[in-house]
Amino acid sequence: MQTATRTFRLEELAGALGLAFTGNPDCSIRDVGTLDSADPDAATFLANPAYKPALASTRAGVVVMKPDMAETFNGNALLSANPYADWARLIELLRPQPAAAAGIHPSAVIADDAQIDDSAHIGAQVAVGAGVRIEARAVIGPACVIDDGVCIGESARLVGRVYVGGGAHLGRRVIVHPGVVIGADGFGLAMEQGGWRKVPQVGSVRIGDDCEIGANTTIDRGAIEDTVLEHDVRVDNQVQIAHNVHIGAHTAIAGCVGIAGSTRIGRYCMIAGASGIAGHLDICDSVIITAMSTVLDSIDQPGEYGSGIPARPHARWKRLLVRLGQLDEWARRLRRLEQSNNNGPSRHE
Amino acid sequence: MQTATRTFRLEELAGALGLAFTGNPDCSIRDVGTLDSADPDAATFLANPAYKPALASTRAGVVVMKPDMAETFNGNALLSANPYADWARLIELLRPQPAAAAGIHPSAVIADDAQIDDSAHIGAQVAVGAGVRIEARAVIGPACVIDDGVCIGESARLVGRVYVGGGAHLGRRVIVHPGVVIGADGFGLAMEQGGWRKVPQVGSVRIGDDCEIGANTTIDRGAIEDTVLEHDVRVDNQVQIAHNVHIGAHTAIAGCVGIAGSTRIGRYCMIAGASGIAGHLDICDSVIITAMSTVLDSIDQPGEYGSGIPARPHARWKRLLVRLGQLDEWARRLRRLEQSNNNGPSRHE
Amino acid sequence: MQTATRTFRLEELAGALGLAFTGNPDCSIRDVGTLDSADPDAATFLANPAYKPALASTRAGVVVMKPDMAETFNGNALLSANPYADWARLIELLRPQPAAAAGIHPSAVIADDAQIDDSAHIGAQVAVGAGVRIEARAVIGPACVIDDGVCIGESARLVGRVYVGGGAHLGRRVIVHPGVVIGADGFGLAMEQGGWRKVPQVGSVRIGDDCEIGANTTIDRGAIEDTVLEHDVRVDNQVQIAHNVHIGAHTAIAGCVGIAGSTRIGRYCMIAGASGIAGHLDICDSVIITAMSTVLDSIDQPGEYGSGIPARPHARWKRLLVRLGQLDEWARRLRRLEQSNNNGPSRHE
Repeated sequence: MQTATRTFRLEELAGALGLAFTGNPDCSIRDVGTLDSADPDAATFLANPAYKPALASTRAGVVVMKPDMAETFNGNALLSANPYADWARLIELLRPQPAAAAGIHPSAVIADDAQIDDSAHIGAQVAVGAGVRIEARAVIGPACVIDDGVCIGESARLVGRVYVGGGAHLGRRVIVHPGVVIGADGFGLAMEQGGWRKVPQVGSVRIGDDCEIGANTTIDRGAIEDTVLEHDVRVDNQVQIAHNVHIGAHTAIAGCVGIAGSTRIGRYCMIAGASGIAGHLDICDSVIITAMSTVLDSIDQPGEYGSGIPARPHARWKRLLVRLGQLDEWARRLRRLEQSNNNGPSRHE
Repeated sequence: MQTATRTFRLEELAGALGLAFTGNPDCSIRDVGTLDSADPDAATFLANPAYKPALASTRAGVVVMKPDMAETFNGNALLSANPYADWARLIELLRPQPAAAAGIHPSAVIADDAQIDDSAHIGAQVAVGAGVRIEARAVIGPACVIDDGVCIGESARLVGRVYVGGGAHLGRRVIVHPGVVIGADGFGLAMEQGGWRKVPQVGSVRIGDDCEIGANTTIDRGAIEDTVLEHDVRVDNQVQIAHNVHIGAHTAIAGCVGIAGSTRIGRYCMIAGASGIAGHLDICDSVIITAMSTVLDSIDQPGEYGSGIPARPHARWKRLLVRLGQLDEWARRLRRLEQSNNNGPSRHE
Repeated sequence: MQTATRTFRLEELAGALGLAFTGNPDCSIRDVGTLDSADPDAATFLANPAYKPALASTRAGVVVMKPDMAETFNGNALLSANPYADWARLIELLRPQPAAAAGIHPSAVIADDAQIDDSAHIGAQVAVGAGVRIEARAVIGPACVIDDGVCIGESARLVGRVYVGGGAHLGRRVIVHPGVVIGADGFGLAMEQGGWRKVPQVGSVRIGDDCEIGANTTIDRGAIEDTVLEHDVRVDNQVQIAHNVHIGAHTAIAGCVGIAGSTRIGRYCMIAGASGIAGHLDICDSVIITAMSTVLDSIDQPGEYGSGIPARPHARWKRLLVRLGQLDEWARRLRRLEQSNNNGPSRHE
């Protein structure tokens, strides 16, 4: 659905945000932009000091920024201790998202015993299974499939074309983007007489309040117990979360990450893009994994971890790969040199 | 659809599974759990010896385990040579999945000439194209799209929101999870006068009996001939299988793996999560690829292969990256040391 | 939809393609195949010289190839300066794709104010939002969701089950494969009082003419301005393109690549499979990234770059990982050897 647009005087905007401001209180603000692109009727923000040089030439009507950054700024400023968060609040004011109309679209197919709150919105082409419960103000966008026994919490929003498998429970204000599959079977297989036997997956998925799940992400149901995301977990696009994984509150996971089965991740972790985390590990709170890293061992100390290798010009990289292949031989050569130097083998060896 | 629950006396359960048991034949079993969580009316299993310590404190009504593990166990045990496979069979007994009701949901759109067996189930919001054949007891879950000329084998189950492209053939008992796309065009492009020309992809996809395809996985149609999965191939979530790939029977592929075009993978291979396999390769039978590895060459010997690098604390990893960049210089320094030692260059160089 | 089949005499085919030929002008061609599989009534092609040995035994009715390759060939040949591109044109002749019938399927749900050209095709189970514009001959396949304010260009084809989010603009002849999500929210989060606040994403997505987007790929809407693909960008399956990314014309991106937010990629780049490109980078024109590489820095020189490590037998790889862990110690040992050799520290150090 499209967002509306509202106009504020700078003074009103500052009041609505609870922020001090400098400059012309009557400046009219009705749009948003970047430091480079914002017009004189648009707001923008400065959070990353690296962009400070762009301040000199910005035409923006107002800039949300820290008070110290504003000291040398001639334009209008909204003074904020946390400019990026206040920027988010400013956009919410200027572009309020209209509430979806309550009611069930006539093309939706709803099981007789589903309980759908009167204030909920069920979009076109939706299918809702038996025993489903959809709570107040929840929005089920077009073409979603909600399988039997699912519960969708108050004010949750499934944007469209989301699949939620049997028995899953989504908390309040959860946002789920298109293409997401919650509650598909985990990958459980037993080898028997030379072939695979599927191990039925009888757990489900529980997603806490205020989680957000990015497009085409998959979260498998648990094998026996549930796969769990605590509250305020934020997951980007194309992330794979396998069965029995447990993710702590406030953890953020960037695009293309894969988390294998039964791994526990703590609170306030940040997993950068395309990293992989092996199964049955325990990652403690406040761990940062850098991009394209491979986590093969549990981590019990907060901090930053990684194994991503930055790309180089191909010829240099190929030579480096040759060197890697020589390391075994180098180990022998080093030792031989040390012996012939009468140093004997190094005590570090 | 939700699974039902049944209750068994231990003696009955052992009989149904064809297993010997120890303990109280009248113990009533109606649930499943883990060694840690199972209640006295629940079954659990012990397959991985690492979990043996949990046996001492389990409250489970019965544990499926190997006879030698059971020797020192005081609780009820189902004695199995293959506990994980028998565990799967036990769940099938306790939580039988009800057969989907035969028939076509009124909201489904079915081409006039589609042949749908009377025992098949076609769910809500489904679209079935011209010339499609859906065989006995097949289940097409909600919001699936079955394009023209597709054949879905006996007892296959497309859980929901699956896309199957023109002419694809799925075998018997195949299970396809939500979000899967079978038979999209492969990535075939010819450069012509400074722009790309699409090379039409006229092959299709053939998937053998008893395959299982995980959520949001993609399997492209062949460029000329078909992309093929032999029988009992098991594919996890978010796997990308490019055009003309051929995967041998009983091979298992974990989440987030990518397999580039025209590669052949043998039987009984296991590809761990997030690995990538380049195009036009030949991987023989019984190859294991470890997690997050990059396969750039054909493999003609069974065994385990890999190139994943375990993550380390960031400061240590950054220092190691610096060392990597120095290897070329080290090669020169090593040689110079050897020369000055009158050893001459090593014969290994 | 299924493709039709047509039959040509070789002479006619050569005329239609504007190519010279050698061999029997009356040879009847009605199918396509590979050098190995083509029947005597089928065409095939030879573009990669590595496949030249297969020429000797091919039974194909005609082979599209370069004139110099044809000199020693006894069969029928279509002589082409660009065999792979002419092969694409040949398939288009033999397997013309029928135009989709104009009109709106009765099961589609269309907002009252959507403007849909009379020549456009809207398939079964589609949902089209308010203010949408769908231009001449565009095809919206089954189960697509087109959100409010989207514009779909002339002759564009959304194969089926595609999601296009609010306000996105797709150019002429764009092809979008199933499972694609265009215009989901980017991953914008501000930490505030110990929890995440969502930063509303108010940009959209613009996709130029002649782009092709592979199955289950995701392209996020911009945070403030639009995410942009210029014309003739070709994207394979399961690619993640984050908010504010800008991709230049004629760039091709293979499967499973991830591109983080605000990165700019030039024209005529080729990104091989499963590579990751960090955010806020600038990649110049004509850059090639090899498979499974990690791009962490901007690139300002055309050429080939990479950091993928080819898999080795596991025992050898594990030993190499041990060596990697020893490099810090080796640095000390090398220096000590150099000092004891009275060479002093190397000037390269």
